[in-house]
Amino acid sequence: MEFVKIFDTTLRDGEQVPGCKLNVQTKLKIAAQLDELGVDVLEAGFPISSPGDFKSVTEISKLIKNSVVCALSRAVAKDIEVAAEALKHAKRPRIHTGIGTSDNHIKYKFNATREQILERAIKAVSYAKTFVEDVEFYAEDAGRTDNDFLAEICEKVIAVGATVLNIPDTTGYCLPEEYGAKIKYLKENIKNIDKAILSCHCHNDLGLATANSIAGVQNGARQIECTMNGIGERAGNTSLEEVVMILRQHPYLRLDTRINSKMLYQTSRLVSNEMGMPVQPNKAIVGMNAFAHSSGIHQDGVIKKRDTYEIINPKDVGVTDSAIVLTARSGRAALAFRAKKIGYEFDKLELDRVYDQFLIWADRKKEIKDEDIPAIVRESIVLIKN
Amino acid sequence: MEFVKIFDTTLRDGEQVPGCKLNVQTKLKIAAQLDELGVDVLEAGFPISSPGDFKSVTEISKLIKNSVVCALSRAVAKDIEVAAEALKHAKRPRIHTGIGTSDNHIKYKFNATREQILERAIKAVSYAKTFVEDVEFYAEDAGRTDNDFLAEICEKVIAVGATVLNIPDTTGYCLPEEYGAKIKYLKENIKNIDKAILSCHCHNDLGLATANSIAGVQNGARQIECTMNGIGERAGNTSLEEVVMILRQHPYLRLDTRINSKMLYQTSRLVSNEMGMPVQPNKAIVGMNAFAHSSGIHQDGVIKKRDTYEIINPKDVGVTDSAIVLTARSGRAALAFRAKKIGYEFDKLELDRVYDQFLIWADRKKEIKDEDIPAIVRESIVLIKN
Repeated sequence: MEFVKIFDTTLRDGEQVPGCKLNVQTKLKIAAQLDELGVDVLEAGFPISSPGDFKSVTEISKLIKNSVVCALSRAVAKDIEVAAEALKHAKRPRIHTGIGTSDNHIKYKFNATREQILERAIKAVSYAKTFVEDVEFYAEDAGRTDNDFLAEICEKVIAVGATVLNIPDTTGYCLPEEYGAKIKYLKENIKNIDKAILSCHCHNDLGLATANSIAGVQNGARQIECTMNGIGERAGNTSLEEVVMILRQHPYLRLDTRINSKMLYQTSRLVSNEMGMPVQPNKAIVGMNAFAHSSGIHQDGVIKKRDTYEIINPKDVGVTDSAIVLTARSGRAALAFRAKKIGYEFDKLELDRVYDQFLIWADRKKEIKDEDIPAIVRESIVLIKN
Repeated sequence: MEFVKIFDTTLRDGEQVPGCKLNVQTKLKIAAQLDELGVDVLEAGFPISSPGDFKSVTEISKLIKNSVVCALSRAVAKDIEVAAEALKHAKRPRIHTGIGTSDNHIKYKFNATREQILERAIKAVSYAKTFVEDVEFYAEDAGRTDNDFLAEICEKVIAVGATVLNIPDTTGYCLPEEYGAKIKYLKENIKNIDKAILSCHCHNDLGLATANSIAGVQNGARQIECTMNGIGERAGNTSLEEVVMILRQHPYLRLDTRINSKMLYQTSRLVSNEMGMPVQPNKAIVGMNAFAHSSGIHQDGVIKKRDTYEIINPKDVGVTDSAIVLTARSGRAALAFRAKKIGYEFDKLELDRVYDQFLIWADRKKEIKDEDIPAIVRESIVLIKN
């Protein structure tokens, strides 16, 4: 069994969402949870981008005991200096620096040539290396970068000390076989690849981030960059919970992570609540309904033998009946799910009425227990009759 | 260019969600929209399961002009008769019948042998064929069914007239390469496969439904079973919008669908609203943030050249600024998204306060326009000061 490192970027790439900017205290709370969850690397922020980000990276660096703490920078001297400064209290600091390598980025974003990009990449990694031992290089838009040039730039930054090579599919365009083939090509064509590991950083614009990351590790990558609940800019990043459970449920791949999967559900809830980013009921692994069987046929099958329809034991990801707590922030799906557990089924109109009543109760009591549900249902019926 | 048929099961498998049961009127509304969207097949329900489902299939059969209308049944004579009856007004009716074929299902669900299952499958398809020309056979839990047996059962049901073979990964366990290999095996080993098409029916328990479906069509399947927004039991089904846009954005695959992609966003909203199933902001293609660029770096890139970070033109899936309508049902993410468009950025606490005020406004006015936002912000600040 080999281990794939989990590089969590919930607090950096994940936070690049309108309305999700977190304060330092919240970031510390999430960072502590992620450290306990067992992430290998915790990307804490982009220190040059704002004083708040600088402060967050500084405080997270002081707090975290186990994970590597990582700070982002562009391939710019000032960025790297500020990242190093923010990381100075970290037990295991990593600077993450890099530059766009696709012809599209080179031409339209940097108005430069491949030679100039190569030079800036080497300079950035070398400079970061004067501050920390652990330097990760990202080749932005690697998904659309010519493989030969990508291998060349990777080889040259490894030569000056890069320990990890981040191969992002920045626009979320790759198909799994393409992304896997790219990783395979790099693994086979970077001469000094034994001195570094390849890292998958995928985006979910077409719903393929998880499959692409798995294709990456099947072809030799040994780190996955991901976020809780798959949050992030646009359609988000690879979902941490999905890649972790895929590797765990497919032992014949002989790849695993060090994540304590029993903490996945509570971590998902924490991130969702603190960021105000809802998780849809049908979200894999951590959605409200991920383990809910509603059709008669399926329920019958599950009662006869659990794995007829269920491949993950909900307890393995920390979902117990009591994990699904009803509050005023819960939606209709959550209410219907709990009500169903104790024998109520509603059609849409009934659910609307019960839900209205539920909200009144939820405002009064902080948490609605299963034993409150019959009274809520009764009251909503009384109201209808009046 | 070959065409892949889109088999929409929003109203059947998609509806198997706690609290999502729809009435006939709502089903008709959604069916009309799906027909206009251009789905090739519309699975309207499971007629034997309830009088409501029977009525829905009957009414949808009368309404739909273009799509094939399909009804589900188990491999049971009574089911098939009731399905045929419900479909009698359909212009292009299809009966979808089948049985579990994995050893797990055969043993624990049916307490039967492979021979008995084979016999029941042949009998069911033959019987369905006495009512309609177009009969689809599903091999439930095909993902865990031995390939030899699966090929045998497929061959025998084609011999008695099955036109489509549905190969479901019922538990959502397969990796894309496994699912693709299964389809390839069937395509190569079913002797009479030229008389039928293979169909992908994937579940999203591990976040791989989309990738598995694409692997299926790359290996010879020519139908994808899917739902709007990926809704469905547990973590849901394959997302219609994702597979459609993947094929459209990868023309070198030489596979396309007949979907009018410009209707995807409005169809997504309709299904979400009618079912009360929220779509998370970071959902691919149809999420509120799917086309929102928030980081300074990305915005800069997009302004310089759109496809630096964007692979789909939002207009191609029907997203225009005005498509994102703010109502009392909108979440914080939607409010933040619209507010950002007109220049407001909030931290979490500010957003909470503005959102409270927004809800008061949204209750009063049905729809909140961009021009209302400055007043809402002002009022929430006044409230803070008092």
